[in-house]
Order: sequence, then structure tokens, then C-alpha cells
Amino acid sequence: MASPRKTILITGAAGYIGSHIALCCLLSGKFSVVTIDNFHNSYPTALKRVTKIAQDALPADASDDDKKALEIEVYRGDISIKSDIEKIFDEYKSKGGIWGVIHVAALKSVGESGEIPIKYYENNITATINLLDVMERNQVYNIVYSSSATVYGAPPECPISESSPLQPESCYGRTKFMSELILKDVCDSAPEKWRAISLRYFNPAGAHPSGQIGEDPRGRPGNLLPLLSQMAVGKFPEGLKVFGNDYTTVDGTCVRDYIHIMDLAQGHVDALAALPRDDIYAAQGKASGFGASGGKYKAYNLGKGEGMSVLQMVAAMEKASGHKYKTEVVGRRTGDVPELVANPALAEKELGFKATRGLEEMCRDLWKWQSQNPKGYEGQE
Amino acid sequence: MASPRKTILITGAAGYIGSHIALCCLLSGKFSVVTIDNFHNSYPTALKRVTKIAQDALPADASDDDKKALEIEVYRGDISIKSDIEKIFDEYKSKGGIWGVIHVAALKSVGESGEIPIKYYENNITATINLLDVMERNQVYNIVYSSSATVYGAPPECPISESSPLQPESCYGRTKFMSELILKDVCDSAPEKWRAISLRYFNPAGAHPSGQIGEDPRGRPGNLLPLLSQMAVGKFPEGLKVFGNDYTTVDGTCVRDYIHIMDLAQGHVDALAALPRDDIYAAQGKASGFGASGGKYKAYNLGKGEGMSVLQMVAAMEKASGHKYKTEVVGRRTGDVPELVANPALAEKELGFKATRGLEEMCRDLWKWQSQNPKGYEGQE
Ligand SMILES: NC(=O)c1ccc[n+]([C@@H]2O[C@H](COP(=O)([O-])OP(=O)(O)OC[C@H]3O[C@@H](n4cnc5c(N)ncnc54)[C@H](O)[C@@H]3O)[C@@H](O)[C@H]2O)c1
Ligand SMILES: NC(=O)c1ccc[n+]([C@@H]2O[C@H](COP(=O)([O-])OP(=O)(O)OC[C@H]3O[C@@H](n4cnc5c(N)ncnc54)[C@H](O)[C@@H]3O)[C@@H](O)[C@H]2O)c1
Repeated sequence: MASPRKTILITGAAGYIGSHIALCCLLSGKFSVVTIDNFHNSYPTALKRVTKIAQDALPADASDDDKKALEIEVYRGDISIKSDIEKIFDEYKSKGGIWGVIHVAALKSVGESGEIPIKYYENNITATINLLDVMERNQVYNIVYSSSATVYGAPPECPISESSPLQPESCYGRTKFMSELILKDVCDSAPEKWRAISLRYFNPAGAHPSGQIGEDPRGRPGNLLPLLSQMAVGKFPEGLKVFGNDYTTVDGTCVRDYIHIMDLAQGHVDALAALPRDDIYAAQGKASGFGASGGKYKAYNLGKGEGMSVLQMVAAMEKASGHKYKTEVVGRRTGDVPELVANPALAEKELGFKATRGLEEMCRDLWKWQSQNPKGYEGQE
Repeated sequence: MASPRKTILITGAAGYIGSHIALCCLLSGKFSVVTIDNFHNSYPTALKRVTKIAQDALPADASDDDKKALEIEVYRGDISIKSDIEKIFDEYKSKGGIWGVIHVAALKSVGESGEIPIKYYENNITATINLLDVMERNQVYNIVYSSSATVYGAPPECPISESSPLQPESCYGRTKFMSELILKDVCDSAPEKWRAISLRYFNPAGAHPSGQIGEDPRGRPGNLLPLLSQMAVGKFPEGLKVFGNDYTTVDGTCVRDYIHIMDLAQGHVDALAALPRDDIYAAQGKASGFGASGGKYKAYNLGKGEGMSVLQMVAAMEKASGHKYKTEVVGRRTGDVPELVANPALAEKELGFKATRGLEEMCRDLWKWQSQNPKGYEGQE
């Protein structure tokens, strides 16, 4: 008999990153998944497809129980409302409890965060505090948190390591920074109980190779790759604006660290496995950019450690999709840093994490998702 | 006829600082006061006494309306629960609305904050976000916030000015720092609407000279002056522990900037008067220790600008109370900085604020409160 799966609550599992994390948790064989999502930026369809992909990967003689273990229990709810979270933990008491939480749900637009900051603080900070409070009341002390490279602000070094100072430059970045601070204080308050790992994502991109799940942003995509893939299916015929080509980078355009979403998602399974280890927290404070302390808190970059310029990404997507992009160089955009690339050494050393998938695979998988689902999840089962 | 008073919502007006702020608002003739307090660290009696002091100060021929305007409407409620705040704004719609908020309520123990951080983040951050959300929904855009000198952490300069970097060293300090960041983001998002002033208190002490209201901490006081005044009425006969007398200060003991509570409270009336002015925000970002921006946010130190050592305070309280203190010098306490004194120049220049009351007056007024109310408010009407 297989060893029983531990139950993980993933907040926001219906979203782009959450759905791939959920899939990797299920595929690992170690975890079953329950989620809370208010579907403000996602569709329940994504979760059904995650289960389907996982079930399709089972051996032909898999039992009904094996299949059932891959179903995701979905709570439609809002984590900024504490009682919505309480309900789940209450119900799971009689179902063997929740082992840990991957806290993914958040609002994530840098631009929008400056326009409606209260909404961002409510969704990203009040919600985090709610979650921690309910976890504590239910003696659930394991958490992996979706942080972001934006916590670094303008990077003083490149590639950037976790011990760099945290100086976020947007309201969104501050919500991620504050969540990390809160997690660290909570871990410091009870090192015998709490363990938290923050994963600072660089630029997640691509999709599961099945083309069944992927990124489906509402409105005009804020990120480069989804924008390019949507252009390749006919949207935004006006073409791509390249913000500045006079930076001191390989070709003058901005350089980012794109990481395949399946690599990134796998990093969460690695983090769940590392949480119970004591050694990784030994020098936590300084290594995470905070003052040193005795709590079991640690932050890791999740990146590939390679920079790609805007023009390099355009070329790669042309190759993958066959679409010829119309580009126009316009002035620099305020707030953009020329180059942001992860030093991924710490995650490799301590979590055994490595982004193995390359640029070509990323664009191929993204294009498979986009071409199979030109309108995303909308109206699909 | 007197011009109508503007309604101010003071969160936590029953507490030590809030009660003196409420009194100064009422005495100014410009404001009427409504409050929300959960009385977790205070008594409703304080609010009745505030009204009584204000009414006693009216001329003999004051009308019943004049007296009534000094009553404080009290909502027993918890600001970490949004609906408790909504109720007030809803009800005040038909009563002429709320002009502005002085956000005082918070948990305030540095030591305790490290032990129960979630409770601190909930009371001090979720609550602030709740309050701002309800204010925005009700188009109330004026706020004065109770910040603290702890936002500076170990001060790189002494006296310290508002543009010093903000590096809080405790969970409590981080809740104050984050609240300031949130307020600043909110102000930056809509400069045509929001205006916020944070007041960074140094060491508030003393009481209203009537001896009717004062500080009444539960349990053993964490601050020096209330501890000394309680010792003078017979509590804590074991005497005072002096944490270190080998600092490079006037007499080797720690130096702080004690400010008379009535001066501090008056600073809030000054801040309410300054909020609508545009000039004070001109160079706000840098002056408050943040990046510059276009929002109407500003932070001010409220201190006297004079340092007093532990031993100097003991001597002053001996003089005021006639009590001979037993002191014992013990080792330094981790986290204590030798000297923390405000540079109060900015508040004087821009708010017209000046702490005029001296050390002797502070100790005299404190002692009046303590000797008239040896058990604080407990069991009193
Ligand atoms: N996509 C990126 O480039 C990127 C980079 C760095 C960090 N992140 C972080 O990763 C996380 C996931 O990002 P994503 O790209 O998958 O975004 P997404 O919008 O696709 O997914 C977020 C999910 O959370 C849900 N959600 C949001 N607020 C909620 C609330 N209050 N209650 C319940 N559910 C709620 C949404 O409906 C959605 O399903 C976020 O925390 C984001 O800040 C993303
Ligand atoms: N006393 C100081 O030395 C000092 C120094 C710097 C800053 N401050 C700040 O000044 C403010 C007032 O401090 P104080 O000394 O008067 O403290 P206090 O405890 O006497 O007053 C706080 C008041 O707020 C109320 N309150 C707390 N949490 C609440 C909640 N969730 N809902 C409703 N009411 C709530 C309490 O019952 C109390 O009446 C706090 O924000 C504190 O952080 C105090």
C-alpha cells in the first residue's frame, strides 16, 4: 500500500502558478490538495484539468482510491475573510487535518497596486495574517510562501542572492516584503513550532507540456510571454512595444530570468520536503536579507540563473509559434531595472532545486497551451 | 454662535494617550469626538472624565448644547473586525459625517509583540487596513496616525530626524513601520484625496494636571515613569532595576526623550489643523525616511528634544512624590539603545508644535494622578 498522502492547503490553486504547484504536489505521490480560491482571476476548470493530468499519469491498473486521491477539494472563498479559512480547517479536523499550507493567492499587478493599494494590502497582507492566525489556532505550523524577486527592488548585484537588502519599489513589492517580515516574526516567536519558507520567484513562464493548463490572464497581459503568445493567436495586432533598447545589456533591451513554470512548481515540492529539516535554518536571518535570529524561517530564489533579453524572448517565441512579431522600440519605462537575474545557488544547495528546462521548451509548452486554448479557460469544461 | 465642531473618530480614545488627545480635541473648540475601543487595556471611566474636565473648563454661562458637544460617543468594538468600524461610519452618515480619524488604538508592548506576533499584526496592521478601507468607502480621507520612535531602530544619529532610515528592531516596531508604509502608499495612490500625518512619539509621560486622567497600565508597567509612580504608592517594593550604568551617557544610564502627555496630545490638534495645508507635503517622501513621491503623506517626531537619563528621572520622581526609591544596577538589557532623543525641529517649523512643559511639571502631574488614583481607574466611576 502506498504511504498516505499529507494534505496541503494551497491558497489560489486555480491560478497560473497555483495550478502547476497543485499538479506537482499530486504527481509527487506525497501530497493531496485542498484549495481555497475566490476565482477572481481564474477558473475552476483549471483544477479539474490538474486532476485529469495527474490521473492520466497513473499506471493502467491504478485503483479507484488512487484516482480519488488526485481530486482537489475546492472551497470557493476569500482569504481576506477569516471565517472562509476557518471553515476549511474546521472541516479537515475530522479528515485527518492539514499538514501544511502553500500560500499562493494574491493580487499581483505592480501597476494596479499603486492605484488601489488598500485592496492590495487587504488581499495580500490581511489575508496572510488571517491565514497564520487560523493555522496557529489549528496547530498547523508549516508554510511555504509565494514571494517575488520584486522584494529586492533595484538590484545592487546581478545575479542577486537572497542576502541582498530588501527594498521593494512598488506597493505590490511591499506586500510581498511585509508578508516575509510577518512570517519571519512568527517563526522567531516559536522556533519549536513554526517553519516557513518563502520562495522568491523570478519570471515564471511556460505551461505544463500537455497544453491542458497554463496562464490565462484577464485583459491585456502585463507580462511579456503571455503577451507574445496571445499575439501569436491574433490578439493585440498593434504589436509589441519594447521599452528601451539602450540599456547596457546584451542587445540593449531589458534582461530577466525566465523560469519554466514546471521547474518553479517543483520547487514547492522541494520546499515542502525541506521544511522539516533543521539544518537549512541555521543561518536563516542574514541569508534571507533580514537580521539573524533563531527562528525557522528561510527565503530562496527560484530562478534559472540565466538572463534573457526582450529581443531574445521574441526570437524564441517566433521560433516556437511561427508567428512573425511586429515590434516597436519606445522609451524606457520608469521603474524598470535593466537586468534582474537570480543567483539560484542557495536553493540548489539546500533544497536540491534546479531549473532544468530551457528556453526552447518553455516557449514550446507555452505555445502548445496557447494554440490549444486560444481563449484560455473561458467557457471550457 | 460658535462654528460647528468637526467630528473626529479617535480609535482607542479610552487609553492613556487617546484620552488626552480626546481632551485636547474637545478643549480646542474645533472638534467633537467619537471613539471605538474594545477596552482591552482601558476603562470607559476615562472617557467620562475627559468630558467632565472639558465641561468644567466651560464658562459659567455655557449652554446645554455647549456641554453636550463635549460628550464622547463610545462604540465598544474591535477595529480588527471591519464591520465594527463600518457601523460607526454608517451611523454617522446621518449625523453630518466624520471629518477625520486619529488612529491611536494598537497593542504596544515590544516584548509581548515578539511572543504573540500574529495578535500584534492583527491588531496593528489588519486593523489599520480595515480602517483605511472603511474610510475610503465613506470618502473620509483625513488621518493622523500614532506612530513611534521605535520605527528608527538603533538610531544612526542623535538627536534623530524624520529622514533617518527606518529600521525597526522589534515586531511591534515593524507594525508601526508597516502602517506608515501603507499610509504612504494610500496617499500616493490619490494625492487629490488622501492626506495622512504620522506622529512618531518619543516617550509620552505625565498626566493632565487635574489628576483626573492618566496612565493605568495593567500588570507591571513596562515604562519607567508609571513604574516609578506606582512604586511611590507602595507597589513593587523590590525596587527599580536599572539596566546598565556603563553607557557613554551623562551618568551611564540610558537616555530617553520624555514628553509631557498634554504636549503630545496637543500635537494631534496641530496635526489636524495642518492636514488640509498643501505646503507641508512638498518634500514629504525623503523627509519621512521613504522615497520621495507626490502623495500627501508626512511624518513628524513628537518629542521634547531633550534627553533625560534613568537616574535623572528617578531623582525627579523622588522630588515630586517624596518617595525614596530603592534602585539596583543590573546588566544591560539586550535591544536597549543608549540614547534616543528627537530632533523636534520639523514639527515646530511645519506644525507649530512645541513641547513646553518641563520635567518637573511632568512628574508633578503624574504624581497627582497616581496619588489621587492609587489603583488607577479600577472600580471607579
Ligand atoms: N506570475 C508571476 O510572474 C509572479 C511572479 C512572482 C510572484 N508571483 C506570486 O505568485 C502567486 C501566484 O501568482 P499567479 O501568477 O499564479 O497569479 P494568479 O492570479 O493566476 O493566481 C492567483 C490565484 O489566487 C486567487 N486569489 C487572489 N486573491 C484571492 C483571495 N483574496 N481569496 C482567494 N483566492 C484569491 C485568484 O483567483 C487566483 O486563482 C502570487 O502570490 C503572486 O504574487 C507571481
Ligand atoms: N505609550 C507609549 O509610550 C507609546 C509610544 C509610542 C507610540 N505609542 C502608540 O500610541 C498609541 C496609544 O498608546 P497608549 O499608550 O495610549 O496605549 P493604551 O493601551 O493605553 O491605549 C490603546 C487603546 O486602544 C484600545 N485598543 C487596542 N486594540 C484595539 C482594537 N483592536 N480595537 C479597539 N480598541 C483597541 C485599547 O483598549 C486602549 O484603550 C498606540 O498606537 C501605541 O503604539 C505609545
